Amino acid sequence: RRRGIPEAILAEGKTPAEVAALTTTAVETTGRALVTRADADDAAAVRTAFTAGPDADDELSAAVDHDERTRTVVVHGDEFTPPSLDATVAVVAAGTADAAVAGEAAIVAREIGATVDRVDDVGVANLDRILDQRDRIAEADVVVVAAGREGALSTVVAGLVDAPVIALPVSTGYGVGGEGVAALQGALQSCSVLTAVNVDAGFVAGAQAGLIARAVDAARRD
Amino acid sequence: RRRGIPEAILAEGKTPAEVAALTTTAVETTGRALVTRADADDAAAVRTAFTAGPDADDELSAAVDHDERTRTVVVHGDEFTPPSLDATVAVVAAGTADAAVAGEAAIVAREIGATVDRVDDVGVANLDRILDQRDRIAEADVVVVAAGREGALSTVVAGLVDAPVIALPVSTGYGVGGEGVAALQGALQSCSVLTAVNVDAGFVAGAQAGLIARAVDAARRD
Amino acid sequence: RRRGIPEAILAEGKTPAEVAALTTTAVETTGRALVTRADADDAAAVRTAFTAGPDADDELSAAVDHDERTRTVVVHGDEFTPPSLDATVAVVAAGTADAAVAGEAAIVAREIGATVDRVDDVGVANLDRILDQRDRIAEADVVVVAAGREGALSTVVAGLVDAPVIALPVSTGYGVGGEGVAALQGALQSCSVLTAVNVDAGFVAGAQAGLIARAVDAARRD
Amino acid sequence: RRRGIPEAILAEGKTPAEVAALTTTAVETTGRALVTRADADDAAAVRTAFTAGPDADDELSAAVDHDERTRTVVVHGDEFTPPSLDATVAVVAAGTADAAVAGEAAIVAREIGATVDRVDDVGVANLDRILDQRDRIAEADVVVVAAGREGALSTVVAGLVDAPVIALPVSTGYGVGGEGVAALQGALQSCSVLTAVNVDAGFVAGAQAGLIARAVDAARRD
Amino acid sequence: RRRGIPEAILAEGKTPAEVAALTTTAVETTGRALVTRADADDAAAVRTAFTAGPDADDELSAAVDHDERTRTVVVHGDEFTPPSLDATVAVVAAGTADAAVAGEAAIVAREIGATVDRVDDVGVANLDRILDQRDRIAEADVVVVAAGREGALSTVVAGLVDAPVIALPVSTGYGVGGEGVAALQGALQSCSVLTAVNVDAGFVAGAQAGLIARAVDAARRD
Amino acid sequence: RRRGIPEAILAEGKTPAEVAALTTTAVETTGRALVTRADADDAAAVRTAFTAGPDADDELSAAVDHDERTRTVVVHGDEFTPPSLDATVAVVAAGTADAAVAGEAAIVAREIGATVDRVDDVGVANLDRILDQRDRIAEADVVVVAAGREGALSTVVAGLVDAPVIALPVSTGYGVGGEGVAALQGALQSCSVLTAVNVDAGFVAGAQAGLIARAVDAARRD
Amino acid sequence: RRRGIPEAILAEGKTPAEVAALTTTAVETTGRALVTRADADDAAAVRTAFTAGPDADDELSAAVDHDERTRTVVVHGDEFTPPSLDATVAVVAAGTADAAVAGEAAIVAREIGATVDRVDDVGVANLDRILDQRDRIAEADVVVVAAGREGALSTVVAGLVDAPVIALPVSTGYGVGGEGVAALQGALQSCSVLTAVNVDAGFVAGAQAGLIARAVDAARRD
Amino acid sequence: RRRGIPEAILAEGKTPAEVAALTTTAVETTGRALVTRADADDAAAVRTAFTAGPDADDELSAAVDHDERTRTVVVHGDEFTPPSLDATVAVVAAGTADAAVAGEAAIVAREIGATVDRVDDVGVANLDRILDQRDRIAEADVVVVAAGREGALSTVVAGLVDAPVIALPVSTGYGVGGEGVAALQGALQSCSVLTAVNVDAGFVAGAQAGLIARAVDAARRD
Ligand SMILES: Nc1ncnc2c1ncn2[C@@H]1O[C@H](COP(=O)(O)O)[C@@H](O)[C@H]1O
Ligand SMILES: Nc1ncnc2c1ncn2[C@@H]1O[C@H](COP(=O)(O)O)[C@@H](O)[C@H]1O
Ligand SMILES: Nc1ncnc2c1ncn2[C@@H]1O[C@H](COP(=O)(O)O)[C@@H](O)[C@H]1O
Ligand SMILES: Nc1ncnc2c1ncn2[C@@H]1O[C@H](COP(=O)(O)O)[C@@H](O)[C@H]1O
Ligand SMILES: [Mg+2]
Ligand SMILES: [Mg+2]
Ligand SMILES: [Mg+2]
Ligand SMILES: [Mg+2]
Ligand SMILES: [Mg+2]
Ligand SMILES: [Mg+2]
Ligand SMILES: [Mg+2]
Ligand SMILES: [Mg+2]
Repeated sequence: RRRGIPEAILAEGKTPAEVAALTTTAVETTGRALVTRADADDAAAVRTAFTAGPDADDELSAAVDHDERTRTVVVHGDEFTPPSLDATVAVVAAGTADAAVAGEAAIVAREIGATVDRVDDVGVANLDRILDQRDRIAEADVVVVAAGREGALSTVVAGLVDAPVIALPVSTGYGVGGEGVAALQGALQSCSVLTAVNVDAGFVAGAQAGLIARAVDAARRD
Repeated sequence: RRRGIPEAILAEGKTPAEVAALTTTAVETTGRALVTRADADDAAAVRTAFTAGPDADDELSAAVDHDERTRTVVVHGDEFTPPSLDATVAVVAAGTADAAVAGEAAIVAREIGATVDRVDDVGVANLDRILDQRDRIAEADVVVVAAGREGALSTVVAGLVDAPVIALPVSTGYGVGGEGVAALQGALQSCSVLTAVNVDAGFVAGAQAGLIARAVDAARRD
Repeated sequence: RRRGIPEAILAEGKTPAEVAALTTTAVETTGRALVTRADADDAAAVRTAFTAGPDADDELSAAVDHDERTRTVVVHGDEFTPPSLDATVAVVAAGTADAAVAGEAAIVAREIGATVDRVDDVGVANLDRILDQRDRIAEADVVVVAAGREGALSTVVAGLVDAPVIALPVSTGYGVGGEGVAALQGALQSCSVLTAVNVDAGFVAGAQAGLIARAVDAARRD
Repeated sequence: RRRGIPEAILAEGKTPAEVAALTTTAVETTGRALVTRADADDAAAVRTAFTAGPDADDELSAAVDHDERTRTVVVHGDEFTPPSLDATVAVVAAGTADAAVAGEAAIVAREIGATVDRVDDVGVANLDRILDQRDRIAEADVVVVAAGREGALSTVVAGLVDAPVIALPVSTGYGVGGEGVAALQGALQSCSVLTAVNVDAGFVAGAQAGLIARAVDAARRD
Repeated sequence: RRRGIPEAILAEGKTPAEVAALTTTAVETTGRALVTRADADDAAAVRTAFTAGPDADDELSAAVDHDERTRTVVVHGDEFTPPSLDATVAVVAAGTADAAVAGEAAIVAREIGATVDRVDDVGVANLDRILDQRDRIAEADVVVVAAGREGALSTVVAGLVDAPVIALPVSTGYGVGGEGVAALQGALQSCSVLTAVNVDAGFVAGAQAGLIARAVDAARRD
Repeated sequence: RRRGIPEAILAEGKTPAEVAALTTTAVETTGRALVTRADADDAAAVRTAFTAGPDADDELSAAVDHDERTRTVVVHGDEFTPPSLDATVAVVAAGTADAAVAGEAAIVAREIGATVDRVDDVGVANLDRILDQRDRIAEADVVVVAAGREGALSTVVAGLVDAPVIALPVSTGYGVGGEGVAALQGALQSCSVLTAVNVDAGFVAGAQAGLIARAVDAARRD
Repeated sequence: RRRGIPEAILAEGKTPAEVAALTTTAVETTGRALVTRADADDAAAVRTAFTAGPDADDELSAAVDHDERTRTVVVHGDEFTPPSLDATVAVVAAGTADAAVAGEAAIVAREIGATVDRVDDVGVANLDRILDQRDRIAEADVVVVAAGREGALSTVVAGLVDAPVIALPVSTGYGVGGEGVAALQGALQSCSVLTAVNVDAGFVAGAQAGLIARAVDAARRD
Repeated sequence: RRRGIPEAILAEGKTPAEVAALTTTAVETTGRALVTRADADDAAAVRTAFTAGPDADDELSAAVDHDERTRTVVVHGDEFTPPSLDATVAVVAAGTADAAVAGEAAIVAREIGATVDRVDDVGVANLDRILDQRDRIAEADVVVVAAGREGALSTVVAGLVDAPVIALPVSTGYGVGGEGVAALQGALQSCSVLTAVNVDAGFVAGAQAGLIARAVDAARRD
């Protein structure tokens, strides 16, 4: 029971060998895998596992796609057919520092099959930027908003569009309320309607957006 | 721009007179109003405002529905036609103490037009109860799970159904992690995919569920 | 050395008799007094102290002005000439629940001699309201922004005007980050430039705005 | 007075030389020692102390067993006869990341003399896995449940078996409530009856389980 | 599946009518009930439910025992045969202020069938008092230690006896670390082996002690 | 809309390449840039971008000024004319450890055009030092006070001068309240009137001081 | 073993009857008693216990001294000879709101036998007041400093005198760091040498000052 | 005004060059210096400054004493005559991990001139160890107790001796309440009379003990 969410291996706290083994099992049993919070060693170990050589699995052939910025590795077994949903997820990011976490969310939503529209660099210190993108965001079926520091962007976006909004706080900011804590508390206290995931939980935000996209897609197909 | 969410007046921290005035304005401008966290005095003031008498507004005639358990007052102007969506929200509650907050979520979702299915008293200390309701919950388009103390029910439900799940932590429990804090942190740390609202934020959970129901309904009508 | 700030008596935690005695001393020595966080009993005791009768001070005659909403009592001895500055403070409030704290700030700034412009009900859930007031706020020499819950309004205002902005978090919101904590942390993490005072510290925000107004006034008179 | 618990040296915060010296003393006086949270250098220093060579203690001969995964070193002097209890401890772990801490608990319980049954990879995101192991766990006299993130597994297990359950929160999870905090608070708020140890305190959980096993063993021998 | 633990109704946060209804159901289905954190009104409502009169259940006859100090109500249906275990629980309390919470633990353990030995007023500010009771406590199969403020008593007791110790922090103490927080953290950091329950969780401590007593009793009967 | 504040790039959490690129854009569009929290690599990358060579921008020629102590890099395009205000900012620091953060504030205020007067090493453990500087500080139009540990200096300075004071807590101090937390809370609780910025937020304190200086300068020119 | 400290009964959380009984026992066994945090009912119950009448103890005759402001009751049995030390404790308070807690400390120190010198209303917002009292405070053998909000007074005093200083944080201040938390953290982070007691722990500060006075007195008598 | 406390340079957060410069100044102006929290580089820089060579100060000749375990460097100029007090400080440590912090306290007290008696390895998990040392500790004029984890030792010692006790929490322990937090809160909540310093603040504890020793010495000389 995976709800269309790819089996995800959280690389942090695991050795590259463990990551590679869990990835191999996931590809064997579900056709694909998604490694999150992977560093270069984790990615190399995964790549090696799917490449001819002493450590590789002879039976398994797969496309391995490592994205350094988001620290994800996507593996598609050669037999795997990616799902495709008739639904769109907008992934909105406030600034440069929010782009990596937003990217993780985007990759997960895409793996679930949604069309993803990225809207970057629209922090509220300059309101014109987000107001300019309002119509584009309003076209999505569900919106993820990645923002750190005080995270005001998620409140503003949820005040601008009709679709459900998921706030994705990012671990920026120093001092009291830093590391995403103020952004998360701001989402929980938002005077616009939205739900939240934990700080830096791009995987969860993207997956929940994907689940909503699946529900919309299924309804469209009814 | 209300996204189909009724104008909501948070009664706490306002005088009954302020509550009644804001409610009247909402009914005048949007046809209805929802008062949350209302006590008996707030409810009485609202009722008086819509009843013939010196304090009443002559032009306004409305049905006033006060639910003591959930502390909500729903007001529908006589002209108001409630929306009706082709989409279902399941509202699941762990125990007796979670029922009031769950009820607030249910009322909001219903006001947005969703069909609401209440599933009560399925706390995880006795797993059979929730397993017995699995098929019923699986029929909903979106699920709200209200649970206090350690809030494990939301993780369990999100592991059982395909629909998006919204965790609604409830302010039960004493000592460290009490008053819903452990339940909220548990939702943020959940090993199943879900999003969270703040402790006791039944309004927000129900409204977000309603927004998802609206998206599904719109897709069904496509 | 009072920097033009009226002697302020924080009534909370003091008996009405203590409040009245401290107020009398302040009026005797500085010509006026400001009581903050006063309840009805504190106000009555102060009023009695400046009215003919057994408890009244024969020598002292003063105008006593009690504002219930902001819980302040302003006392001006008959000899007192209020200062008047050639400088304006805008006091901006997000919603009804923020008005009392904003009002406390406004009274202090006015006592220091500033012209105060109140801008109410411009919360960011509906951006049009604040955008509509932008030009008006831009005319002030310094701006105080009172907002509770996630407090996003202070970030937005500081992105719209050139004047220095002081964020005044208000103790609204329940659950994690409630009681003004998220609003304060949001101000400390703001991606616009601003400084902050503690939750509900209307007196401090108004006094600092008054000090800036004094500096501007002095410069204008140079 | 050690209650059958091996003298334990917490290696963290000590130099390898200090660890080796304390271990030697423990073996000399009690016949054995247990080093916890040992890194490779600590283990090497201990091994050296019990091996012929300039740093070794001539009189002391011992079996040194270093387990990298659990970061423990078990040392049994040649004269030492391990205790053996007629009682079983089940050590249940939610996922891969919980295995190391669970392993520390298992080693301590085994050193006290209990039979240990390890049940791994039964996290609640997939309830079938834990339900499948229910009968096996129910055979133990006492159960330790190691789980990180939201730690819901300990509540679920305590709802499934009659034996006393000890929750062992594990320092996984990022963001708010991460590093085991949510898991610990969840255990303290659990709606099933259980007691808790601190985050990652495998030693304490295993030792308490061992003490209960000793009580059961003594009663069996009555 | 109750593990011999009486069905417990937490009265706090429930109306007396709800408490009485839940108690009645528990007595009907399990022969008895235990109400915790009950005030006078809760106790009266329960008593009324089991007494001839309009609100009483004709079929149900039961002994109702309300203990004001511990805020518990124990109800035994006339048919109910209390269990009796061949095992002893010592319940140790530091001072007067800890006695009520200790009493709650004692009542639960007794309801599970254990023999309970109460040791009061042995706080560590005067070590002689606890040293004098050492032999008596050492006779128990399991020990609960109720202590507030810094809670040092639980560490001291666990250093004096061989049996498993359960620390029960009590919500005494003011200022930082007050309300039982320091006592709970002290238990989690204890340099003696013990497990902990949440602040004031007398029910949980007593129930876990009862489960251990049941395990010992079963082993004795083997 | 920059209010005269230089575009600032927070280097922390960005790669040197990203920092250089953002700096280049800022110089191209606004004539200058300010990099904060820059390490040696960030500074080198910026310098390279404005120096002839393969990575350099041919069109752009600029003066690059790296200050190691404050971790700032100031870049002025050759065309850029620095602003000059008729207003003074005093930047007061308690001790050696506060000097770097104070320096960041000073640089920002200077970039905005203010005259900056640095007053160092006047911690309150020796009151004579600050009393000796009182007249000098009193000449400034606005004062920034950088202090760590308990941060008492900001309260003392705000009691000595008439100008508005901005408290800048510094992340010194170990243990509870360390890393600037006590200093920030002390500023928020100050019994003198002042506003605060977050711990180590030299940029924000300096920028707000600069905004006040701009207001004063504009008034002087009226 | 009481170290010359009177047996103290903390009235909070005890019934008046319990307080009276513990007080009676203390007077019987040690000749006197000190009740702290007593309300009017506690005081009345104690007074009654030492007055002829049905509830009074015939054998016990004592002077009962209730101080409302400090919430203490001092009871001296008729036989009791108060100790008298050749040592002085200065008790310094910042403002009106600190006087009650300071008074509790003073009473305890006096009961131990020290000469107490009270210095009130010397908060640091006006440095002249404390500088004026410097020589007087410098005459004491040990100094207690009671201050709330940011508590800067304790740092300032410890910078002015040679004697050991005990910081006594007071639970004033609202918002973040309020209720004495900032004052306590400020004491723990003080850049002057001092030790601290918990918020509002006048009893502990006074008792420790009394212990130091006893040591000095004993040395003087050598 | 140093109260007999050596000028102390906190090396953490300073460069070795800064540490050496501040040390040199201190020796020049006060005859000696104490560097705390020094690493090897800091110590080397200090040593070099007082040794013939290019970096050395020709005029200054001094004895430099670096203690690695406590991370302190004591520097006595050749002219410096160490003070000598007729008073004793006992420095008591719970375990190996507490010895370094205890050592820092001991060095400071000794520099102030007190006789220091070190009592090590008397943690309360084995009460006999501390009871055995009771008479020895009782001979001191003032006692410092260094203990980490739950810090119960300070409460126990303050219950055993008449002298004033200073609790010195140590940053041991992992998980919730770890890093000395539980030990500090335990000291603040202690049911014995004592005062506290911050976690790991050996310098402050030793200096305050030294100030008390000075007061006792002065009284002895009266
Ligand atoms: N970046 C992530 N954040 C949160 N949860 C994740 C993340 N990556 C994977 N997961 C979840 O963690 C589970 C795997 O955990 P593990 O067994 O520790 O690898 C997956 O099934 C996902 O549900
Ligand atoms: N991993 C651990 N977690 C908690 N307590 C431990 C651990 N390892 C050892 N201990 C306890 O710490 C004591 C040793 O502490 P120490 O003197 O610092 O080595 C032992 O007696 C054990 O009771
Ligand atoms: N106001 C107070 N603050 C802190 N400790 C106190 C206070 N009053 C009494 N105590 C201490 O608490 C002990 C009495 O506690 P109890 O047995 O609860 O009455 C006394 O022996 C004192 O050591
Ligand atoms: N280990 C320490 N812990 C606390 N305070 C210290 C320590 N070492 C030095 N100090 C204090 O810090 C001051 C020096 O601070 P700084 O100017 O940052 O070097 C000294 O005057 C001491 O009062
Ligand atoms: Mg890895
Ligand atoms: Mg109301
Ligand atoms: Mg009052
Ligand atoms: Mg080591
Ligand atoms: Mg009730
Ligand atoms: Mg960088
Ligand atoms: Mg009472
Ligand atoms: Mg250094």
